[in-house]
Amino acid sequence: MKIEHIGIAVKDLGLSEALFTKLMGTGSYKRERVDSEKVITSFFSAGEGKIELVAAESEEAALAKAIEKRGEGIHHIAFLVDNLDAEIVRLKDEGFEFINDQPKLGADNKRIIFLHPRSTNGILVELCENYRV
Amino acid sequence: MKIEHIGIAVKDLGLSEALFTKLMGTGSYKRERVDSEKVITSFFSAGEGKIELVAAESEEAALAKAIEKRGEGIHHIAFLVDNLDAEIVRLKDEGFEFINDQPKLGADNKRIIFLHPRSTNGILVELCENYRV
Repeated sequence: MKIEHIGIAVKDLGLSEALFTKLMGTGSYKRERVDSEKVITSFFSAGEGKIELVAAESEEAALAKAIEKRGEGIHHIAFLVDNLDAEIVRLKDEGFEFINDQPKLGADNKRIIFLHPRSTNGILVELCENYRV
Repeated sequence: MKIEHIGIAVKDLGLSEALFTKLMGTGSYKRERVDSEKVITSFFSAGEGKIELVAAESEEAALAKAIEKRGEGIHHIAFLVDNLDAEIVRLKDEGFEFINDQPKLGADNKRIIFLHPRSTNGILVELCENYRV
């Protein structure tokens, strides 16, 4: 498993893009809407991995509720795997719980699924796989 | 800036090592005590980056207080930089605040410094540089 990205929950995407541009010394290379999550994402390169800023597009987004509850900050870690379906089977066998039953389409042409933080030391873990059409 | 590691605050290092071994499908490759922070760390490979579990060795550790306040979970992001001193100057000029005045020795033979979360969207950001003797 590789660290694919770190997801950062932000309230104002423009303000946080400006902040991360200063911090990282380089700008966001793309924005992308993720309809399934009602969020807009913005990506920064960080070596082999990425920083993904995530802002809610609607008050109904799970992310909006997370920010209301816990404020802005690190939201999830995403690991890239070669075979998402096989990893899901392996991790279910190990006793891990998933938030969704099935993978869905995420940003950046990925199939993604989230593990439930109650089975992962309080951490929201995303698994992702490059989507093959 | 590359993602060098993601630091995860845990209460019981042994239990969390067992959990992450299952999650990542591979075990911790080393434990290391960091006297300056009164913590023990445990490292897992994750592609070019690492997952660093961090447990307090003393109730006085800043980490013990952080866990008491916010529970276990993602604690910090560490970025590897080529020239730590130059980055500190650059980031101070950009208006970022640091927790410490000077870098100190961290785990894994690194010089490290932390930015204050109030200047970085609520995120504890570590900058690190490979230590040259």
